[in-house]
Amino acid sequence: MTASVFIGTSVDGFIARPNGDLDFLPEGGGEPHGYQEFIASVDAIVIGHKTFETVLAYPAWPYGEKRVVVLSSRPVDFSAVRGGVVEQMGGPPAEIVSQLAVRGIHHVYVDGGITIQGFLRAGAIQRLIITRVPVLIGEGIPLFGTLPRDIRLHHVATRHYPSGLVQSEYLVVA
Amino acid sequence: MTASVFIGTSVDGFIARPNGDLDFLPEGGGEPHGYQEFIASVDAIVIGHKTFETVLAYPAWPYGEKRVVVLSSRPVDFSAVRGGVVEQMGGPPAEIVSQLAVRGIHHVYVDGGITIQGFLRAGAIQRLIITRVPVLIGEGIPLFGTLPRDIRLHHVATRHYPSGLVQSEYLVVA
Repeated sequence: MTASVFIGTSVDGFIARPNGDLDFLPEGGGEPHGYQEFIASVDAIVIGHKTFETVLAYPAWPYGEKRVVVLSSRPVDFSAVRGGVVEQMGGPPAEIVSQLAVRGIHHVYVDGGITIQGFLRAGAIQRLIITRVPVLIGEGIPLFGTLPRDIRLHHVATRHYPSGLVQSEYLVVA
Repeated sequence: MTASVFIGTSVDGFIARPNGDLDFLPEGGGEPHGYQEFIASVDAIVIGHKTFETVLAYPAWPYGEKRVVVLSSRPVDFSAVRGGVVEQMGGPPAEIVSQLAVRGIHHVYVDGGITIQGFLRAGAIQRLIITRVPVLIGEGIPLFGTLPRDIRLHHVATRHYPSGLVQSEYLVVA
């Protein structure tokens, strides 16, 4: 099982403004930078309760037919989901990973700040694809959080785009 | 006058551990990644009091014959500097920049976390060269701090190196 992160941040490392706003990201997500190819390669998406609520407010369900797992210890109301495949799970990252592996899932996309941080802290992320948007916003929701120990990374590739997006792909060194 | 930053950070944006330790950087600074060329292009180096003290503890004065300006509102003891050209200045970044420009300085290297943040906040940085070391350290002294407003960046170039260093160069969009 591989768990991957695919996320955009400001150059100073924020994935959203303090209020969750994403207005510093380029309109429409910027030029194509591999998201479609990435999402096509995953079997399931794991998000937190907060990201789920954010995504529910979008005009359309963004994950298509992909299986979406919402992590929450409290009951989650899925009645507003239209056309998506959604379920709830709870427990520590290692347990979530085991449950998904048992179901034959090979590649999971871990999304949302709190969820990414929790999975990284638990050593449950194998791959990071970080796209830096050329702006400093000064404050907001950080991509990274504290860790029990250093996580060494292996640099796989870096690509840059005419709009100034710089995307680096890393594998976590076990 | 151009003020540039040339600095290494962890992928999670720290320039040092909480205690100032730099042990997460590659030994000897990693493979050559443009520092010699950069330092040769500057006329003066502006650092804070804290960076000055750190540098004093190095086995040799690292700035050669370059003019080094130490920012401090309190008197700084320069008696331990051997062979360096050092002076003290105080005041807000814009004033420092004016003083340096009057002396015919065209390109200044701004170094040290607090000084970089202060100059960025004051809009006194024109160029950023950030080299990301492939590791997450979880906590430490951050490169970036809060800002009065967004700083838009223009991506100039990104280079990567066999050891996994990824260096991006940006100009501040005025």
